[in-house]
Amino acid sequence: METLQNIDTFLANYLGLTDSEIQTFKQNMDKLILKKKDCFIEQGKRAAIKGFVNRGCTRTYFTDHNGKENIIFFSFEGSWIGDIESYHSNKPSRITIEAIEDSELLVISKNNFELIQKKMPILNQWYEMSAVKMYSSLFDKLIESKIRSPKDRYEFLIEKHPHIFQRIPLKYISDYLEIEPQSLSRLRKRLSKS
Amino acid sequence: METLQNIDTFLANYLGLTDSEIQTFKQNMDKLILKKKDCFIEQGKRAAIKGFVNRGCTRTYFTDHNGKENIIFFSFEGSWIGDIESYHSNKPSRITIEAIEDSELLVISKNNFELIQKKMPILNQWYEMSAVKMYSSLFDKLIESKIRSPKDRYEFLIEKHPHIFQRIPLKYISDYLEIEPQSLSRLRKRLSKS
Repeated sequence: METLQNIDTFLANYLGLTDSEIQTFKQNMDKLILKKKDCFIEQGKRAAIKGFVNRGCTRTYFTDHNGKENIIFFSFEGSWIGDIESYHSNKPSRITIEAIEDSELLVISKNNFELIQKKMPILNQWYEMSAVKMYSSLFDKLIESKIRSPKDRYEFLIEKHPHIFQRIPLKYISDYLEIEPQSLSRLRKRLSKS
Repeated sequence: METLQNIDTFLANYLGLTDSEIQTFKQNMDKLILKKKDCFIEQGKRAAIKGFVNRGCTRTYFTDHNGKENIIFFSFEGSWIGDIESYHSNKPSRITIEAIEDSELLVISKNNFELIQKKMPILNQWYEMSAVKMYSSLFDKLIESKIRSPKDRYEFLIEKHPHIFQRIPLKYISDYLEIEPQSLSRLRKRLSKS
């Protein structure tokens, strides 16, 4: 299911911040404009930052030793993006996050987050929830080619992101699903008729 | 690298608990004896528990729709094991954790953990660290067949767990590495000569 929440809704509903806490949180964020194909996080560089997708969408991928980009997931409005591994370990990131459309992020640095975390202990649970979410997305990706047929993978993706074909180029979806573009087109046609 | 810490060392060094806090923590744990092939967590069942490997070792795997067991990682003495996804979401687990040797775990239920967490806010960081570690292990597994050759995968595993061949049956290592048992034996012979 597409998440369509904005940052205020997220902070209020998900974390239970008060209006004044939301203001403090937002004062510690910066707006970041990404043109299509700009990177928010680059494989090999440190990433002590996290971002909220205000507008647009991104793909998270890693490049393998053959230079192939392997897409792990897509993120749309209302999602947090970042690399929890590099964020916590301070090691170079193993992923790249790139804008698929011109996008607007609200970003917060690790330093700023830790500063306000001291004032709002409720933010401690943020990690717990977001790390588990990232873990689940990764697990989905790890197992899906082993537990789901191409058709099931396609249907699972559509259920999660009903409008994905309107926004994401077919080649990215095909990469993500690990289905050849031609087979994916055939599959779509077949399923749209049934 | 093999971790060989015991529960006291872990709680003191990793979390910074005082002696009396360590006692409180341990009073909320139970000893769980697993015979070889007993399960700590079973795919399809809820798992609001986490365990510390005091003695023995386990394999974490998921069973795909062909009934094949796919090993994600091995855990030895000094490691925490569990399913952070089921723990937090209260949904059925997507993994199984099974003892490879007769093993002894120290386990703590989610209820007990949350009770002592209220008294020891320092435990909040436990989630952050452990979730990120789980994420990293999963990421290793996800990317390794794409970024590492069989030989590199083998060497990476040996570096992480030097004594793995003394403790884990070849068929599990071969499953984990996604290398046929015969190819793995040949690879070992070749590398031991070089």
